[in-house]
Amino acid sequence: MSEPRMVEVRRKILKENDLVARRLRDRFHRAGVQVISLVSSPGAGKTTLLERVLTDLGRDHRIAALVGDLATENDAARLARFGAPVKQITTGTVCHLDATMVERAVETWTLEEFDFLFIENVGNLVCPSSFDLGENLRIVLVSTPEGEDKPLKYPTIFNTADAALVTKLDLTDVLGFDLDALIQNIQLVRPGMPVLKVSVRTGQGITEFEQFLLKRRSTLESAPTV
Amino acid sequence: MSEPRMVEVRRKILKENDLVARRLRDRFHRAGVQVISLVSSPGAGKTTLLERVLTDLGRDHRIAALVGDLATENDAARLARFGAPVKQITTGTVCHLDATMVERAVETWTLEEFDFLFIENVGNLVCPSSFDLGENLRIVLVSTPEGEDKPLKYPTIFNTADAALVTKLDLTDVLGFDLDALIQNIQLVRPGMPVLKVSVRTGQGITEFEQFLLKRRSTLESAPTV
Repeated sequence: MSEPRMVEVRRKILKENDLVARRLRDRFHRAGVQVISLVSSPGAGKTTLLERVLTDLGRDHRIAALVGDLATENDAARLARFGAPVKQITTGTVCHLDATMVERAVETWTLEEFDFLFIENVGNLVCPSSFDLGENLRIVLVSTPEGEDKPLKYPTIFNTADAALVTKLDLTDVLGFDLDALIQNIQLVRPGMPVLKVSVRTGQGITEFEQFLLKRRSTLESAPTV
Repeated sequence: MSEPRMVEVRRKILKENDLVARRLRDRFHRAGVQVISLVSSPGAGKTTLLERVLTDLGRDHRIAALVGDLATENDAARLARFGAPVKQITTGTVCHLDATMVERAVETWTLEEFDFLFIENVGNLVCPSSFDLGENLRIVLVSTPEGEDKPLKYPTIFNTADAALVTKLDLTDVLGFDLDALIQNIQLVRPGMPVLKVSVRTGQGITEFEQFLLKRRSTLESAPTV
């Protein structure tokens, strides 16, 4: 297949996705639900983080979650234990969620019943970057074992995110991880992006992260209706 | 875009890739070079492993390497320090190497001068699985911090690999990682696949891994010419 033809095919897919994403964003806004998507490499700790957030924020807020994976319903099963409505989207061989998958998944939900909807994307630092899911906030997770250079090597996903979250902070010392270098690399790729840091294992940074989510939600509530 | 049309587009791309990969494999075989590709999540330790292998096997063997990334030439720069011919392939927004990229990259090399050619793919557990690069041996790396469930969640990449390599073995205890569960999950997805284990940091398992590569090369040498 010729390259111009490939570019054309890709452009058409993205355009269709953007139309659905815009429709979703309107719907989320009208329902008053804050939609937060999580993107990262496989194993950076998205589900583990969500387990903690569902427990903590679930006390005073109504939360739902969608989780994407190529195969298995393991993550949905893990999260369902916390009592929140959870749906698994299995993508087969597709390396990312798209807006249509999200639209289908929330079809039977009354979105007005939720304060937060979390969308955990397929573990991938490349493909999800081009697909708007209608979210209000996209957070890119990067775990300390992955190394300090990831923002430079996968710039697009950092560029499409609204905030970065460094995970597995408790491994910093054992890995000899250079946190300042990572933060510097994030700022090189996306100057000014908020960077938060957590260890779900020790609890370090969790309160700050949850406060950040709550603050973003209050911003949403005070925004004018579109 | 309709789903049947998407499937057709994808099929055409893969068919074209397979033709180039077959041509490459013939060329590698005639040149007597053992071609080993490494696939994994971002940050699983492909480049760190290669640094060690280039040092050790480079004493008695002629080695070259190709490294794929969306952006930066960092990995090529890291590997070039070991004196081996190294080329970086930057893929832009493409989430995997394909056979044409490899063919272009080796174009100016006399492959007969090498015993081993290593190809480090873009860090991704999804996209590289469908693209044959003409390699003789595909190794999927999975690092302990990623968790035991990765083979079940990303089965395709494990199914297209010839061997699995567990990396960052020195973190097993600090993570409370269940190595047996990981191996069991690998065997569930691809029964009989060899599983090797290393820590580049401590050197554990490196000799066994390098012996495995050398043994595979001697099998190649004794294979009949196609």
